Amino acid sequence: MNKIPVIGVIGANFADTEVLEIASAVGEAIADSGCHLVCGGKGGVMAAACRGFRFARNELNAVRVVAIGILPEDTSASANEFVDVVVPSGVGIARNAIITRMADGIVSVGGASGTLSELAFAWQMGKPIAAMVGSGGWSEKLAGCRIDDTRTDEVYAAQSAGDAVGFLLRRTGQSE
Amino acid sequence: MNKIPVIGVIGANFADTEVLEIASAVGEAIADSGCHLVCGGKGGVMAAACRGFRFARNELNAVRVVAIGILPEDTSASANEFVDVVVPSGVGIARNAIITRMADGIVSVGGASGTLSELAFAWQMGKPIAAMVGSGGWSEKLAGCRIDDTRTDEVYAAQSAGDAVGFLLRRTGQSE
Amino acid sequence: MNKIPVIGVIGANFADTEVLEIASAVGEAIADSGCHLVCGGKGGVMAAACRGFRFARNELNAVRVVAIGILPEDTSASANEFVDVVVPSGVGIARNAIITRMADGIVSVGGASGTLSELAFAWQMGKPIAAMVGSGGWSEKLAGCRIDDTRTDEVYAAQSAGDAVGFLLRRTGQSE
Amino acid sequence: MNKIPVIGVIGANFADTEVLEIASAVGEAIADSGCHLVCGGKGGVMAAACRGFRFARNELNAVRVVAIGILPEDTSASANEFVDVVVPSGVGIARNAIITRMADGIVSVGGASGTLSELAFAWQMGKPIAAMVGSGGWSEKLAGCRIDDTRTDEVYAAQSAGDAVGFLLRRTGQSE
Repeated sequence: MNKIPVIGVIGANFADTEVLEIASAVGEAIADSGCHLVCGGKGGVMAAACRGFRFARNELNAVRVVAIGILPEDTSASANEFVDVVVPSGVGIARNAIITRMADGIVSVGGASGTLSELAFAWQMGKPIAAMVGSGGWSEKLAGCRIDDTRTDEVYAAQSAGDAVGFLLRRTGQSE
Repeated sequence: MNKIPVIGVIGANFADTEVLEIASAVGEAIADSGCHLVCGGKGGVMAAACRGFRFARNELNAVRVVAIGILPEDTSASANEFVDVVVPSGVGIARNAIITRMADGIVSVGGASGTLSELAFAWQMGKPIAAMVGSGGWSEKLAGCRIDDTRTDEVYAAQSAGDAVGFLLRRTGQSE
Repeated sequence: MNKIPVIGVIGANFADTEVLEIASAVGEAIADSGCHLVCGGKGGVMAAACRGFRFARNELNAVRVVAIGILPEDTSASANEFVDVVVPSGVGIARNAIITRMADGIVSVGGASGTLSELAFAWQMGKPIAAMVGSGGWSEKLAGCRIDDTRTDEVYAAQSAGDAVGFLLRRTGQSE
Repeated sequence: MNKIPVIGVIGANFADTEVLEIASAVGEAIADSGCHLVCGGKGGVMAAACRGFRFARNELNAVRVVAIGILPEDTSASANEFVDVVVPSGVGIARNAIITRMADGIVSVGGASGTLSELAFAWQMGKPIAAMVGSGGWSEKLAGCRIDDTRTDEVYAAQSAGDAVGFLLRRTGQSE
């Protein structure tokens, strides 16, 4: 079975313009590569990534890929407008574990404590992680590092959105 | 915002041919009406509904709607092959609450205790429910009944797949 | 290891005086038998059961057993005052699955749709269930019945609180 | 209402003898201070903390405080023998969020990626955190630091078990 890969984007609900531009480029790169996007469904980095994803998908206008937003709340009201499929999980912040479970690989953009919990989960679940160099926050701090000794690889220090998605596709065996 | 509605299909992991045919027709009706489908992602009624959904969507071949499967497990391995977007929730049977949260309305086909928990959740969450007449199990038992006194409506006794989906779209304000 | 058994009490957040008296007697019987009590932690049947439990435990004043309340919310504010250990799960209504997982056996008192979801989960998880005869609601409806064909036993129709707890202890191998 | 405070202990499932001794001392300090203990219920730091807690409680032999273990699994089998109340949550690694929700304050001992997710959640939830100096891992790395800019306080660098618990009781308003 050749399932469409799912790339997760993690990052804060509020962010600077520069960080949002990085997130948007990540969303575009995910659509360009023909993958689904999953994120926490809210604002900031999540909304920017979904927006970039939608823009690039509309350009391509053929591929059936979707942006999925897994919300903490039990209604869809807080989802950003660029999410195609809203999952109002109702499990609160524990939804961070569902996002990382669902993703075949993770792109991390900036990020505060919420993003850190997702980086930790993704690492523990053995998922490949690409952290955007220049995006600040925990992504910047952990780029090029190992989160603990249970894995021999590192959080990949991605120089661009295309670099991040390319790395994840190679690591999940979807490319080359 | 005119979000695409999400219709949930609930029913057992194993079922008779007759029940599976009903489930498949429900999946077709959901795609025909331009809605997303959400279910538990596994076999039996869930797989049949996703199969019917995919068949009808391919016929239409234009609409961007997807079949989402929310699994109890933390990997995608147990998803049926007709699910487009797998959510390996990792929260076990508690995923039943996520399915009903996510759906704007529910079609119930046959069903044992797992389906009963979803019927109970959907009722408690105020979701409109259509139970397929002739599908047996808890759907048959509760069709035309109120599950408790907190609502004034009933579980709708649906005579056909089209009847079920039409009822849900009227109730969620997506039609007429 | 001889762990202390955990008995779950399920029932509605609002109930008639008569039903609350049944719930209180169930709580007393659980403490008398030296078991922990787990419930949803809120009002109505849950509060009455915790109150009866505390009263009986204070009479005995030696045993280290506790009443655990697993709340849907992510704070403790909605817990009734007779809960010893509050678990503010933050997972919403999905906490119903945690209550039934945690219990070695379930006593059901009256109940609406929320209780029905717990009865369905308890059945699916293979837990012994005692439903209080005369308590109305879904407990009354399902007493003496099988919820589906996956089990050969029935929901036990309990004539008294002591009958219910005695049945569960026999079924979980804690007695005789 | 003067509820008994709940102190969470977080740390890895495997740890060096030195780290286990720190964890055991933390468990003792929690019992000595008359608080409940909550943890992930498994081995390593969690088991050592529960063992220290039980030892100190038996010395005191009057107080009704308990050690609660919130497991990822849906059965109790993996709980360490010193847990009094096992909650087999069945929600997998998402149980980390329940542990931090339940605790009024957190003591962090050593720790790998799992512990890091709990530190991140505790910070995001606004819980006071004491990290044991000399215990290595993420506790050591984050002691004296702020996890992000949303709070003005720091992860407290605790010099001893008593120092950690004393800090948390002051911060939760249970002391002085």
